[in-house]
Amino acid sequence: MARAYNFCAGPAALPLEVLEEAQRDLVDYKGCGMSLLESSHRGKQYSAVHEEAVANIRELLGLTDDYAVLFVQGGASTQFAMVPMNLLSEGTTADYTNSGEWAGKAIKEAALLGNVNIAADCGGDVPTRVPAAGELQLTEGAAYVHITSNETISGAQWKVFPKTSAPLVADMSSDILSRPIVATDFGLIYAGAQKNLGPAGVALVVIRKDLADRAPADLPTMFRYATYIAKDSLYNTPPCFSIYVVMLVTRWLKKIGLENMFRQNVEKAGRVYGAIDASEFYRGTATKECRSDMNVTFRLPDESLEAAFVEDADALGLKGLKGHRSVGGIRASIYNAFPPDGIDTLVGFMRDFEARKG
Amino acid sequence: MARAYNFCAGPAALPLEVLEEAQRDLVDYKGCGMSLLESSHRGKQYSAVHEEAVANIRELLGLTDDYAVLFVQGGASTQFAMVPMNLLSEGTTADYTNSGEWAGKAIKEAALLGNVNIAADCGGDVPTRVPAAGELQLTEGAAYVHITSNETISGAQWKVFPKTSAPLVADMSSDILSRPIVATDFGLIYAGAQKNLGPAGVALVVIRKDLADRAPADLPTMFRYATYIAKDSLYNTPPCFSIYVVMLVTRWLKKIGLENMFRQNVEKAGRVYGAIDASEFYRGTATKECRSDMNVTFRLPDESLEAAFVEDADALGLKGLKGHRSVGGIRASIYNAFPPDGIDTLVGFMRDFEARKG
Repeated sequence: MARAYNFCAGPAALPLEVLEEAQRDLVDYKGCGMSLLESSHRGKQYSAVHEEAVANIRELLGLTDDYAVLFVQGGASTQFAMVPMNLLSEGTTADYTNSGEWAGKAIKEAALLGNVNIAADCGGDVPTRVPAAGELQLTEGAAYVHITSNETISGAQWKVFPKTSAPLVADMSSDILSRPIVATDFGLIYAGAQKNLGPAGVALVVIRKDLADRAPADLPTMFRYATYIAKDSLYNTPPCFSIYVVMLVTRWLKKIGLENMFRQNVEKAGRVYGAIDASEFYRGTATKECRSDMNVTFRLPDESLEAAFVEDADALGLKGLKGHRSVGGIRASIYNAFPPDGIDTLVGFMRDFEARKG
Repeated sequence: MARAYNFCAGPAALPLEVLEEAQRDLVDYKGCGMSLLESSHRGKQYSAVHEEAVANIRELLGLTDDYAVLFVQGGASTQFAMVPMNLLSEGTTADYTNSGEWAGKAIKEAALLGNVNIAADCGGDVPTRVPAAGELQLTEGAAYVHITSNETISGAQWKVFPKTSAPLVADMSSDILSRPIVATDFGLIYAGAQKNLGPAGVALVVIRKDLADRAPADLPTMFRYATYIAKDSLYNTPPCFSIYVVMLVTRWLKKIGLENMFRQNVEKAGRVYGAIDASEFYRGTATKECRSDMNVTFRLPDESLEAAFVEDADALGLKGLKGHRSVGGIRASIYNAFPPDGIDTLVGFMRDFEARKG
């Protein structure tokens, strides 16, 4: 089969050239006589991979020496707990913004572990937006302020980040490195890799190093950010192959440039939103000022048409367009590595489908 | 370069046919138009992989329906904390056996979280053995009894497991599926994949399901075994590619058969121990009755000879023979996938080296 257009929300499309390089080197990595899958995490082959992955991310995010780049296992879901375990000291309060499914999960875990204030609430049954930076009701002396920079299910994205006196913590799983940010405005950023960074199996944590000192003394070693900072994420065996693919993806991104990537993302998403807005048949679900450049969500006049849309698209090699089961509808996830020509194909298909069924 | 003989302690050698299949399917998995690295963890391609991995392990371990097979991130090091977080209720005591580096790490994490009794201690500066089943001083009504079935650094392995009234918990990271065991004698078995099961990035947990009910209500979702049991390790995105390689490795192992694998392992290790014992030049470091079939550790007359041994071996494509930095010496890690002909090459090299330098 020809290469599919992969609209999955995550794990998601990877750059073809990254996959081809990984394939080429899979059995015998760079002529060393073994695969990277079976190489020591303390050996020179993997060490070079690890160092380049960290360096690429440092450069792409413009990090200062105050920040550490960590690779942690367990996905963003584990970070939902690790953030409060490390940063939410007893007797303090963390401000969380609720913007839907993923913010809700972060809030649920934090509330198990300490005091949580909901600084803004855009949750509800079918979230359509994220809070505006100006509407946050922040706690004086909060331990930190948590946001979810992009909600994959509603397709809503923060466009302007709040300025906070407490450290700003962001789950950027679904839009990390999709646009330039001032990373040093954040205290901690975390992101599961499997959308914009690489495959499943590793989460990126960018942390202002002084924040790691807050962790209580009895926190287990593997849940302490300080462990990862001290050992450069090599206290125990890291998920080497996932980090290798992250290295290849960030190397690919550096060649493109983050500004160019952002322009391409805006242009890609803009063409799908344009097709939605030019039609009475399709209806965007996210509030316009919050429309995500990563996950474009829309509805058709009824659910049977949506099912037919997904099925017909699939037959044409447009894969994974079904919306999340909790909200239904259509979702086109178009992360960094989703190719621009796939947008042409989608928009053409949308026009054709409307002409046939509208 | 020709394929190296990979004596690394972990990540460790994988079967060549597994690597070749992973390479063949890397860019376009089974003709589906995308890589498994970019496929949804809820899609049919990955689902089939996940189900087969679980089924293979269930079959190889002879598990009953009382047991669940889980895939957890963070390696055995995370299990050092998750086991007591889930099983060591307040006011109870867990019995731990100390056999060296890895048991010691498990003990350290458990002691952060609850009451620990050292039921037998073979630690010390340079451990050479594991406890005998009969020497354990067990606590009446203990929450569980923890052992480390194989210590990779000392090269010492439990040959007979203790019979305990409390649930027996074993870190089997370095000898899981290297020999038949009565898995149902255990309450919980955990193992990082990167020695006998696959690549780094996933840990196997086999748990008697009722034990998961002990976890306190405020334990974060990702640290609860019950979460993984309820969602078949798909509560969040699992480390799909690592689990895929585990599936391929366990499929390979099923073709060989676990009894045959065990015989081959005993035979492989026996040839190296035979070469050690036939010589005055080499000296095995583990107590004979505890000698590991997975990690053969030995010394040469002095450290400069050991350095020369490692260097000369490396030049011949015998990679990773240097002992752990904490104890020095030589370590040949020869897990399931280490090929028998590599043993011939090692033993031949040992004879040659002794003839030149002895």
